[in-house]
Amino acid sequence: MIPESLQKQIAFIKEIDKIKYIQRKTKLFNSDRNENDAEHSWHLAVMAIVLAGHANEAVDILKVVKMVLIHDIVEIDAGDTFIYDTQKNHQNTADERLAAQRIFGLLPEEQARELIEIWEEFEAGQTKEAKFAKSMDRLEPLLQNTSNNGGTWNEFGVNYEKVYEKKKVIKEGSISLWDFAENLIDESVEKGILKK
Amino acid sequence: MIPESLQKQIAFIKEIDKIKYIQRKTKLFNSDRNENDAEHSWHLAVMAIVLAGHANEAVDILKVVKMVLIHDIVEIDAGDTFIYDTQKNHQNTADERLAAQRIFGLLPEEQARELIEIWEEFEAGQTKEAKFAKSMDRLEPLLQNTSNNGGTWNEFGVNYEKVYEKKKVIKEGSISLWDFAENLIDESVEKGILKK
Repeated sequence: MIPESLQKQIAFIKEIDKIKYIQRKTKLFNSDRNENDAEHSWHLAVMAIVLAGHANEAVDILKVVKMVLIHDIVEIDAGDTFIYDTQKNHQNTADERLAAQRIFGLLPEEQARELIEIWEEFEAGQTKEAKFAKSMDRLEPLLQNTSNNGGTWNEFGVNYEKVYEKKKVIKEGSISLWDFAENLIDESVEKGILKK
Repeated sequence: MIPESLQKQIAFIKEIDKIKYIQRKTKLFNSDRNENDAEHSWHLAVMAIVLAGHANEAVDILKVVKMVLIHDIVEIDAGDTFIYDTQKNHQNTADERLAAQRIFGLLPEEQARELIEIWEEFEAGQTKEAKFAKSMDRLEPLLQNTSNNGGTWNEFGVNYEKVYEKKKVIKEGSISLWDFAENLIDESVEKGILKK
């Protein structure tokens, strides 16, 4: 007989396949295809591993990787919220909390609790791990938009001030990555792919 | 000025975006769309975290996660090899070694060396981490094919003996997951979605 705990874990593993269908607004590097949440989460995890040395404080990198791998799983129920959406605030919506309870709740109780805590920690953005994970989450689309000739900035009419406002949280996780990001933003204005 | 080491890391981060275009033979759960390498690698990483307690020996889970996140990056140059391909053996081809040197070689030297070592360790499959990582890599398509009414088994005429032969390495990483997998394979034969 298959133990109940394993059956629950397998049910969770099957359920989260659905994030492969959740399209983000941003597109792949040099591409017209939108990125999906699984691809995005994978990329952030590799970035976190490669860029860990840039964190302002030494981070528990396994925790950061867990955060970025699971941060978008709630979107299976709650959907993707565009970061520049002025109608809807992404952070900790009631929908997302319910989604976390349902989806992580497929797991055995202790594991469900652990992953919900990690997700809540990421969303709250207060710990050094959450700050660094959020730096990754802000940096990837910046790299994509600068590779894509303005990408979502032009597509959705997002200007310098809005980009700067959203991206400056990179600094909380990493001053050196923020220096790099600020530079990229300024270059984008100079190139005319981001309007000031 | 942006330090050279960070420029190299960013070049690597941009390059690996290409694995999002590498299609695997297997399809998403309950879907007609093929899975790509980024989605596959993301799924294995979450599986490794959730299923770590099933490893035969306690594993360094961060190392396992690194392995599964990067194991297919060489396919950017070397392409995906179907596991049931009888003409081409996947393991450690000269093409893959060259690809590892080129792609991980975009990183600063010490990081390049670390990731190449982790990739080589995964490919060799001898350590407890590599064995458990390989269990994940074998288990995911088994879950997909059983969810997809036979999936690639039917599409490419793969029979029970071949499946059993490839899947039994799951046991090296986890006896309990192998019990589960063997059960799934037997059930697939009973359901007629895998030919004996």
